[in-house]
Amino acid sequence: MIIIGEKINGAIPSVAEAIQKRDAEFIKNLAKSQADAGASFIDVCASTDVSVEMETMAWLIDIVQNATDTPIAVDSPNAEICVEAIKLCNKPGLVNSVSMEGNKIELVFPAIADTKWECAALLCDDTGIPKSGEQRLKVFSDIMVKAKEYNIAPSQLHIDPLVEMLCTAEDGINTVLAVIREIKAQYPDIHVTGGASNISFNLPVRKFVNQAFLVLSMGAGMDSAIINPLHKHMMGLIYATEALMGMDEYCMEYINGYREGLYGPVK
Amino acid sequence: MIIIGEKINGAIPSVAEAIQKRDAEFIKNLAKSQADAGASFIDVCASTDVSVEMETMAWLIDIVQNATDTPIAVDSPNAEICVEAIKLCNKPGLVNSVSMEGNKIELVFPAIADTKWECAALLCDDTGIPKSGEQRLKVFSDIMVKAKEYNIAPSQLHIDPLVEMLCTAEDGINTVLAVIREIKAQYPDIHVTGGASNISFNLPVRKFVNQAFLVLSMGAGMDSAIINPLHKHMMGLIYATEALMGMDEYCMEYINGYREGLYGPVK
Repeated sequence: MIIIGEKINGAIPSVAEAIQKRDAEFIKNLAKSQADAGASFIDVCASTDVSVEMETMAWLIDIVQNATDTPIAVDSPNAEICVEAIKLCNKPGLVNSVSMEGNKIELVFPAIADTKWECAALLCDDTGIPKSGEQRLKVFSDIMVKAKEYNIAPSQLHIDPLVEMLCTAEDGINTVLAVIREIKAQYPDIHVTGGASNISFNLPVRKFVNQAFLVLSMGAGMDSAIINPLHKHMMGLIYATEALMGMDEYCMEYINGYREGLYGPVK
Repeated sequence: MIIIGEKINGAIPSVAEAIQKRDAEFIKNLAKSQADAGASFIDVCASTDVSVEMETMAWLIDIVQNATDTPIAVDSPNAEICVEAIKLCNKPGLVNSVSMEGNKIELVFPAIADTKWECAALLCDDTGIPKSGEQRLKVFSDIMVKAKEYNIAPSQLHIDPLVEMLCTAEDGINTVLAVIREIKAQYPDIHVTGGASNISFNLPVRKFVNQAFLVLSMGAGMDSAIINPLHKHMMGLIYATEALMGMDEYCMEYINGYREGLYGPVK
């Protein structure tokens, strides 16, 4: 499973405060702890006013890449910021994210073409998030046309089918699961990603919904997730799900994950 | 989800002790607490020497049906004991279990034909647990021939595909998931059941494997499980999974389950 560690995000109050105070130690610890917990990428999202976003991003990236070798996911709703941030990283990471909205793809895809950078791509366009599975697959197909045009390999892409909150969904996540299955059937090498917390908005004990969502989505083919790798129960379920899906011979990863304290106590 | 509460089983040391001492209060509490936690059936398994099994079963059934209105799952490896136990129950319950082994079906099916009794049926025969999915589906098909012969409706049956322990499985649970999907495709009204703890034998933090197993199996169509309904994390994941699968309109069951304290704190 590709884990995109979500904790360095200015939308989180403690991180906003650290950004405000330029508390490098706080950010460094967040980077290091997520890397140690098994994150594949450390997401870096300033979530500041646009006037200071690039400067904040640069400060964050500098701290993170001095704290850990784990690659960075440069995260901004602004594709121009993402493209500038790419230049600051000392190794290929992940752009979070593009979609068929505006000219995001036209800005980002050329910047990562012929590199090892990966890119999250959301299944939405200028009309918002499509309702039906067919419409989302149409957006997906549009993204893949662009990917081909700019020579981006399917394996560089993390498609986010965008789940809506469960409390108002009419058919649970069945549509999203069908979309995931279809995407993986069309492009076995592509990654499917997603956040695991929007789904539970407005529901009690959100962790149960988030956890069951992630396991079901992995069952359908999701192999990347934007989550908190320090959440041991979630990580334990991820390791267990991979083993159950036959992706972990003799459960060695599951057993090693335990020994390394990734989801259980260190022995 | 049909929950078969597993806690009254003489294989559990505290229950064996209660049976030995004829501690009715202990058994009564186990029955009541599982019923209150949302069990659909209270499993009753003596796990004693065969010479005292029927007498023990009778004692347990008497206590359980005086403690709760929740129907009983009469549980014995001995089909003759199951058939006798049926006669002691004051309402239809579930026989746990038959298989294609020996003459179990020939004993049990006539006893529940034209009644509302349900029956768990394991996908094994006199040769043991078949290795391949095809072989299990052959056993399933043999069971369904018998069911038709004795006029047992698919909706009376809980098919247990029998999972092996994950640590030695070659392909995770993919074979079992495919068998579940095929069974539900052939008979949409049939139930698919299973225990959720054998799977994790010999692995660390077994709860993660058990929980992920149950969520993945529910995703494939499992709608019945032999578990401990007092395990709140497992129950929370079950409620969440049903909501995610579109089986719980507006998450009302999930929200009510929370309000009733079935998986979260009572408000």
